[in-house]
Amino acid sequence: MPIESSHPTDSLPLIAMAIGDPAGISPELGARLVVDEEVARHCVLLVIGDSRVLSMGARDAGLALELPVVQTGGLAGLRSHAMLERGDLDPATIERGVVSLAGGRSALGNFVAALELARDARVEAVTFTPFNKQAMRLARPGYDDEIAVVSEVLDSRRPGREFNVLGRLWNARVTSHIPLKDVTRHLSIDAIFEGARLADECMRAAGFEAPRLAIAAVNPHAGDGGSFGREEIDVQAPAIERMKAAGLRVTGPVPADTVFVRATKGEFDAVLTMYHDQGQIAMKLMGFDQGVTLLGGYPFPICTPAHGTAYDIAGKGVADIKAGRNAILLAASMALRNRHAARAAA
Amino acid sequence: MPIESSHPTDSLPLIAMAIGDPAGISPELGARLVVDEEVARHCVLLVIGDSRVLSMGARDAGLALELPVVQTGGLAGLRSHAMLERGDLDPATIERGVVSLAGGRSALGNFVAALELARDARVEAVTFTPFNKQAMRLARPGYDDEIAVVSEVLDSRRPGREFNVLGRLWNARVTSHIPLKDVTRHLSIDAIFEGARLADECMRAAGFEAPRLAIAAVNPHAGDGGSFGREEIDVQAPAIERMKAAGLRVTGPVPADTVFVRATKGEFDAVLTMYHDQGQIAMKLMGFDQGVTLLGGYPFPICTPAHGTAYDIAGKGVADIKAGRNAILLAASMALRNRHAARAAA
Repeated sequence: MPIESSHPTDSLPLIAMAIGDPAGISPELGARLVVDEEVARHCVLLVIGDSRVLSMGARDAGLALELPVVQTGGLAGLRSHAMLERGDLDPATIERGVVSLAGGRSALGNFVAALELARDARVEAVTFTPFNKQAMRLARPGYDDEIAVVSEVLDSRRPGREFNVLGRLWNARVTSHIPLKDVTRHLSIDAIFEGARLADECMRAAGFEAPRLAIAAVNPHAGDGGSFGREEIDVQAPAIERMKAAGLRVTGPVPADTVFVRATKGEFDAVLTMYHDQGQIAMKLMGFDQGVTLLGGYPFPICTPAHGTAYDIAGKGVADIKAGRNAILLAASMALRNRHAARAAA
Repeated sequence: MPIESSHPTDSLPLIAMAIGDPAGISPELGARLVVDEEVARHCVLLVIGDSRVLSMGARDAGLALELPVVQTGGLAGLRSHAMLERGDLDPATIERGVVSLAGGRSALGNFVAALELARDARVEAVTFTPFNKQAMRLARPGYDDEIAVVSEVLDSRRPGREFNVLGRLWNARVTSHIPLKDVTRHLSIDAIFEGARLADECMRAAGFEAPRLAIAAVNPHAGDGGSFGREEIDVQAPAIERMKAAGLRVTGPVPADTVFVRATKGEFDAVLTMYHDQGQIAMKLMGFDQGVTLLGGYPFPICTPAHGTAYDIAGKGVADIKAGRNAILLAASMALRNRHAARAAA
C-alpha cells in the first residue's frame, strides 16, 4: 500500500534517521552515516534528534560535521542531508554506557517524530540507530519492541512484522516473543500463510521479482512423517497449499536444521521460521549482527541495524557503520520502489 | 565406568569398525580408513562385515587392500588391522543408492557384532560407517536411532546419549526426537542436571580436564526475566545450582541465539541444548556434516561420522574420510583413557 509523496520523481528518497540511545554508539553511528558517500549516493537523510548529541557523535568519530537545520515545513525538495532539531537532550547529562530514562525518552521521541513524518508522507522511510531496551522501558513502560510503537503512531490495526535481512537472505517468523511451550498453539494455517504472504509482499517491494520462500518445519526431522509431531501434516502442509494457490514460490516444510544450510547455498531467498530462536540461532551464527532488521507491513519501510547499542565501545570512535549503512540502503531502495508504485497507481 | 581389557598397556587401542549401509559410501569409507596412515598411528582396526563388501569399497577407492581375517578368539595382542568375516552379504545383490532389507540387515548385524565384542571387552571401542535409516527400519521395525540397539545389546538400563562433536566443540541435548510441543514438559531439573553431568563425564573421558559447559535457555531471550516463559527461573536455574554444587563448570541459562556464537569464540567447550533443533540448526550451519557423533554413557565409546550414506556419490570414488577419521581418532583417544583409568582403578 504505497503512499503518495510530494517528492520529485527523479530525486533521491528522503529518509528520516532517528538518533537512538545516546549512551551507546548511536550518536557516533549517526555522524558517520551522515558523511558516508554511499549513503549520500542513495538517499537524502533527515537526522532527527538533538544536534548536540549528533555533534558529540561527530567528535567521537573525529569528524567535522555541520548539518543545516530544517523545519518540518521545509522538507519538500530537500536535496541534501539536514537535521530536524528536537533540542531535548544535553549530552552532558548522559553518562556513557549507562541506561537512563532521559536517554530512552530522547530515543523514543526521535523515533515517534520520524514515524509521524513518514505517516504524513513528509519523508519516505524511517531508519534509526540502536535503542537500548531497558532505557526504552523506562521511557515507555511495557515496551517490548518497536512494532507496538509503530502501530500506535500509525493507528494501524494490522500489525507489522519484523524481518531480518543478511546480505540477500531474509528471515521472517510466525511467532516471536512468546514462551516455547506456547509456540505450536499459535501456529495456525492462517498465521503461517499470512507470514509467507507478507514476506512475499515485502520482498517484492524490496526488488525480488518472485522470492523463493522456504517454510521451516516445526518438529525435529520435520516430524519424520508424523512420528514426532503432526504440525507439518495438519497445519503447515495446508498453509503451503494455500500459498501455492496464491502464486507464492514456496518450498516446505523443510527440516529446520538444514533449511539455513540450503539457503546459504542459494536455494532460497527467505526462510519463514515458526519461532524466535529457530531463525535467530542461524542468523546470528551467520553474522546477523551485521545484518538489518526491517519492520514490514507498513506503508513505508522502517529499517535499523541488527546490532545493539554497544555500550562497551561507546565514545571510543571505533563503531562500525556497515550494518547501519545496509539499513539505510535497504530503506532507500524500498522507498524508491514505493514511490514508483504510487506514481504508477495514481 | 571403564572396563578391563586384555590388551597390553603400551599397545594401540583395538577398535571395531562395523561396515554400514552397503548401497552408499560406507564400503568405500571403510576401505579408505583401513589404509589411512593417521588412523593406523592411533589404533588397530578390526573391520566387521563381509570382506566382499569391503573389497568393493576398495575398488571404488582405487585401492589394493588385503586384510588378514581373524577369529574372535584371536583378538588379544592384535597389532595391525584385521577383518572379522561375517560373510553375510554378496555385494552383487545390492544396487547402489537403493535402500534394501539385505543392506539394513547386514549393517545392523555388523553393528551388533561390534557391540558384543566391546561388551565382552574383546575390543575397546566401536565405530561404524553410516547407516541408512530406512534400511535399518526394514531390518529392525521401530528403529529410530542407535541408542536402543546399544542398550539392548548391553542390557543397559541407563540409556546413553548422543553427543555431536565438531572440532573442539561438543553439543549434547536433553530431549531429542519428540514433538516441539512436548519439549518443555520433558525438561525437569533432574533431566537437565543429568544431561550436564553425563556431558561432563564423557568430556573428561575424552581428555577435557574441566569442560566449560553452557546451558542453552529454553525461551527466546532466555525468557527475559520471566516475560516469555519461566523454565529458566523454575527449572534451569535450580538445575544449574545443582551442577555447580557437583563441581561442574557451567554457565547459563544462555540465550540460545547467542550461545553458539560465544562457543565459536572459544568461551565454552560444550553447549547443552534443550531440544533437537536448538543444537542441530547451529551445528549443521557450522559444518557438523564433517563432525562426529558419539554415543556416550556406555562403558566404551561408540563413534560415527555425522554425515549420511551419500547415496548420490556411492561407488564414485570421491568419498571424503575426514569425518570418519575424526570418529575413529575420538574413539581411540577415549579408549586409551578408558584403559588407563581401568588399570589405575585395578
